[in-house]
Amino acid sequence: MTRWPLPEPMRLALDEALRAADEGEVPIGAVVVKDGKVVAAAHNRPRTLRDPTAHAEMLAIRAAAAQLGQERLEGCDLWVSLEPCAMCAGAIAHARIARVYYAASDPKGGAVEHGSRVFDQPTCLHRPEVYSGMGEAEAAEMLRTFFRDRR
Amino acid sequence: MTRWPLPEPMRLALDEALRAADEGEVPIGAVVVKDGKVVAAAHNRPRTLRDPTAHAEMLAIRAAAAQLGQERLEGCDLWVSLEPCAMCAGAIAHARIARVYYAASDPKGGAVEHGSRVFDQPTCLHRPEVYSGMGEAEAAEMLRTFFRDRR
Repeated sequence: MTRWPLPEPMRLALDEALRAADEGEVPIGAVVVKDGKVVAAAHNRPRTLRDPTAHAEMLAIRAAAAQLGQERLEGCDLWVSLEPCAMCAGAIAHARIARVYYAASDPKGGAVEHGSRVFDQPTCLHRPEVYSGMGEAEAAEMLRTFFRDRR
Repeated sequence: MTRWPLPEPMRLALDEALRAADEGEVPIGAVVVKDGKVVAAAHNRPRTLRDPTAHAEMLAIRAAAAQLGQERLEGCDLWVSLEPCAMCAGAIAHARIARVYYAASDPKGGAVEHGSRVFDQPTCLHRPEVYSGMGEAEAAEMLRTFFRDRR
């Protein structure tokens, strides 16, 4: 069976996730795209950077803002291998990201379709369009392998 | 009438908030304390740093983690002039902050006692003790003045 190829930004986000695993970090990767061009790519690095906020999405958003020289990422899309947590969903709203694409959902730590459902709050100042599921199997398998190997 | 003086870390957080206002940033300040000593102090700087994640709490947490050389801030307290948003509450949980003291509550953007109530979610991995109200009047007045002057 031939499957549709993944959109390039999700392919890159999954490659970033693999890079995190190689560094002993939970394998999650994120990419910011504007007008079809990759502005920033990053992977999860809290242990390496000794920074509890260094999730893939945060690093990608901060790098994109630095790259574009602006506080807000209007018109930018974020592609990430896992459903964002509350911290990252909050950052996505603050950054005014237009569209979020995530691969696997995360019932334990996710805050988009689970837990605090940040974008569904009446007080949320900016709601991105959200699309999920592309690359889900690969992203989830990477996480399963990572946690199995560390047991 | 003589009022009780504010605890020193909240005094410092409010001084940091004033510094933010002087820079044209929304006046919010935060301080991380461990064993009675200030480990990091920061104020809100998203515009100055062109970084949508540069809230006072995020900068203070990141500086404290860098200062202590560790990803988690166990045994640390965070003092902040305003109720943390979803992003900052998420970061507080990731950092394993022991106690959070905030001055003014924030019905519009807060995510501790309002909105997504991050620490109340069954999926929240770490719940700090939370205390609010000390310095409330001063913190709220600083915000009111800031937004009034910008109109």
